[in-house]
Amino acid sequence: MSKNKQLWKKAIQLIPTGNSFLSKNPSRFYAREWPTYYSKAKGCFIWDLENKKFIDFSYMGVGTNIMGYSNNIINKKVIDCIKNSSMSTLNSPEEVHFAKKMIEIHPWAAQAKFAKTGAEANAIAVRIARSYNKKNKIIICGYHGWHDWYLSAKMQKKNFMDTHLFSNLKISGVPSFLKNSTLSFKYNDFEGLKKILKKNKDISAIIMEVQRDYKPTNKFLQKVRSICNKKNICLIFDECTTGFRECYGGLHLKHKVFPDIAMFGKAIGNGTSITTLIGRKKIMRHAKDSFISSTFWSDRTGFVSGLATLDLMKKTKSWIKIKEKGRKIKFLLQKEANKNGLKINFKGMDTLIKFELLNTKKNYKKIITEEMLKKGFLANDNIYVSLAHSEKIIKKYIFAIGKVFAKIKK
Amino acid sequence: MSKNKQLWKKAIQLIPTGNSFLSKNPSRFYAREWPTYYSKAKGCFIWDLENKKFIDFSYMGVGTNIMGYSNNIINKKVIDCIKNSSMSTLNSPEEVHFAKKMIEIHPWAAQAKFAKTGAEANAIAVRIARSYNKKNKIIICGYHGWHDWYLSAKMQKKNFMDTHLFSNLKISGVPSFLKNSTLSFKYNDFEGLKKILKKNKDISAIIMEVQRDYKPTNKFLQKVRSICNKKNICLIFDECTTGFRECYGGLHLKHKVFPDIAMFGKAIGNGTSITTLIGRKKIMRHAKDSFISSTFWSDRTGFVSGLATLDLMKKTKSWIKIKEKGRKIKFLLQKEANKNGLKINFKGMDTLIKFELLNTKKNYKKIITEEMLKKGFLANDNIYVSLAHSEKIIKKYIFAIGKVFAKIKK
Repeated sequence: MSKNKQLWKKAIQLIPTGNSFLSKNPSRFYAREWPTYYSKAKGCFIWDLENKKFIDFSYMGVGTNIMGYSNNIINKKVIDCIKNSSMSTLNSPEEVHFAKKMIEIHPWAAQAKFAKTGAEANAIAVRIARSYNKKNKIIICGYHGWHDWYLSAKMQKKNFMDTHLFSNLKISGVPSFLKNSTLSFKYNDFEGLKKILKKNKDISAIIMEVQRDYKPTNKFLQKVRSICNKKNICLIFDECTTGFRECYGGLHLKHKVFPDIAMFGKAIGNGTSITTLIGRKKIMRHAKDSFISSTFWSDRTGFVSGLATLDLMKKTKSWIKIKEKGRKIKFLLQKEANKNGLKINFKGMDTLIKFELLNTKKNYKKIITEEMLKKGFLANDNIYVSLAHSEKIIKKYIFAIGKVFAKIKK
Repeated sequence: MSKNKQLWKKAIQLIPTGNSFLSKNPSRFYAREWPTYYSKAKGCFIWDLENKKFIDFSYMGVGTNIMGYSNNIINKKVIDCIKNSSMSTLNSPEEVHFAKKMIEIHPWAAQAKFAKTGAEANAIAVRIARSYNKKNKIIICGYHGWHDWYLSAKMQKKNFMDTHLFSNLKISGVPSFLKNSTLSFKYNDFEGLKKILKKNKDISAIIMEVQRDYKPTNKFLQKVRSICNKKNICLIFDECTTGFRECYGGLHLKHKVFPDIAMFGKAIGNGTSITTLIGRKKIMRHAKDSFISSTFWSDRTGFVSGLATLDLMKKTKSWIKIKEKGRKIKFLLQKEANKNGLKINFKGMDTLIKFELLNTKKNYKKIITEEMLKKGFLANDNIYVSLAHSEKIIKKYIFAIGKVFAKIKK
């Protein structure tokens, strides 16, 4: 048995579900030979426990590594920070610098707060919204973590999660008190939202992703903004996945629709754990009326990596480059699909590619992952584009996936 | 104006309350000249932004740095991990190794889960307990973070927090749905707990600190364990602060009272963010029925620092040494108090010293902090003892605090 498999066997004994993060669970990859564990990673290369090298053309840390794994320039800053101690009884000056930077990039916002994980940042946003307008219920659209306030939406509608990234999320242990406290609507369904608002008066906030699988149509985002204004509802954009990918800042900057609070995570530390929440002054000042504090939120590595990552993004104009790369990958995938008589459909953003093959076997995802593994790639139907995906590597990937498309067609 | 003060002035504009973590807020230290920010830290030394050096005889990272700031041996492992990438699409093998180690230390437990912050680990414990026994209400005793489920206890009793570490925690924005969902009792008040249990049948879990200000008396912990068994209530020990200080593992090992779930944080990463939750198999397996997952929980630095810290603790027998140091500090403080005609009263543990002066001015804490700053110490009425507090440094501190006691007496 391979080292990877031996370790996974132990893992499912010692950890419920085997690991801490669903999107990295090998069960999500439908391939017997999925490597599961890594020893090191650099650029878009990953080495497994047997020292076998793969090119990551899948999740790139599930969105955390736009600048490539283990980027030297960012690493240097984080390592210096550790050498000078990432913790102390006193505060990190970089906490203030990072707050300033995030607000400069988003001039509609005046104040920032920090956390370690995206789910925490979402829970903070909910707390601040409720503290601001003294209302209780939340409406969601998209994926916003694992906390009670979010999953309780499923008590109201059993299949609600199915349109919000993950289907079949389990909610055992979410307390019954929260039934009907969180409601949900579908992306681009403004009429559906209006219906919910007609029936429910006690809405504190609408939390949504700016974009995931589909682009906003029919001025959807503008309409949501406008109805929030009318009804004194906080509009909260969860940009943990979308932020800093297609522009230098939140994706909302491109759409010119400005929320009351926005959260950023994943890519902003290029692999170091940090999430940020920014908001308007009139709302953020109500954070003071509530106890929102955690020891490790003061960890200096988060602020340092955030500053270093944003600097490097700006210098390299990463968002322009990865968008170009993404478009090119989509164009070449389309060409390979055409060549092999496959119908391909793209969802998602240019920088967060998601594709489906329409006129073929149902298990094509499994075939892609298994065949691409043999060719040295981590690959499925998702591509999180990074700066480390060079022209040469893209070419190599397209050549390999072309062969797999041909096999799928057969 | 000093650099520290200039930056703090900016901070309170840009961040609600000025920082991310209440215990590091300068308002908690009652001293005009509190340095607020650090540039570097090593051992028990901290340098502020003006490069002024202080000896930390206060919180040592608010409990995170038993092995001293920026420990070379632990740093080396964390830095190697960063050079090999702290993130990837695949999982960290150290996640499994760390789970195994935590369970070996606590043989009553069979499975582990990980998070970044203590409040997260507490929220996970609550979810798993509810998922296990399908009950709703929680009873707390102690400090357990900032989340809705915890702060909602204050809706039931306005002054409930006053006996649980922090008084006057603000709860604006905690939703009204949660009223009466979390109840609280005082440490060592088993009769009080029994009364709550008589009135409330839907209790899923009791979450408590093993010890904070007072030692358990009259078989308090055993009685709580026993009533939990009788009533199918999960007993959860929050060891985020107490763990690995007075023994190699949770403080409950010393008391020989074993919970169903225990959480560890703070010291186990010696400054790197990591928290762990361990539990019995029959309970932990219900984690699978609930979505509990976060991107940054898979951050490799947490597991690596946890393994390195626990190794070094074991090698140095840190818990024996810091207990000895703590006892010595208490003995010497008592001597200095006697010498100056002050009545000193100790609370807390030997390794987490808390003292009060009884027959003197009310503002003695302020005087201690201000006068000790002048002498080059961060100090107040708390001492989190670390391995870096050498004999020589302890002597220096006692000499300095003796002078301040004399001043207070005058």
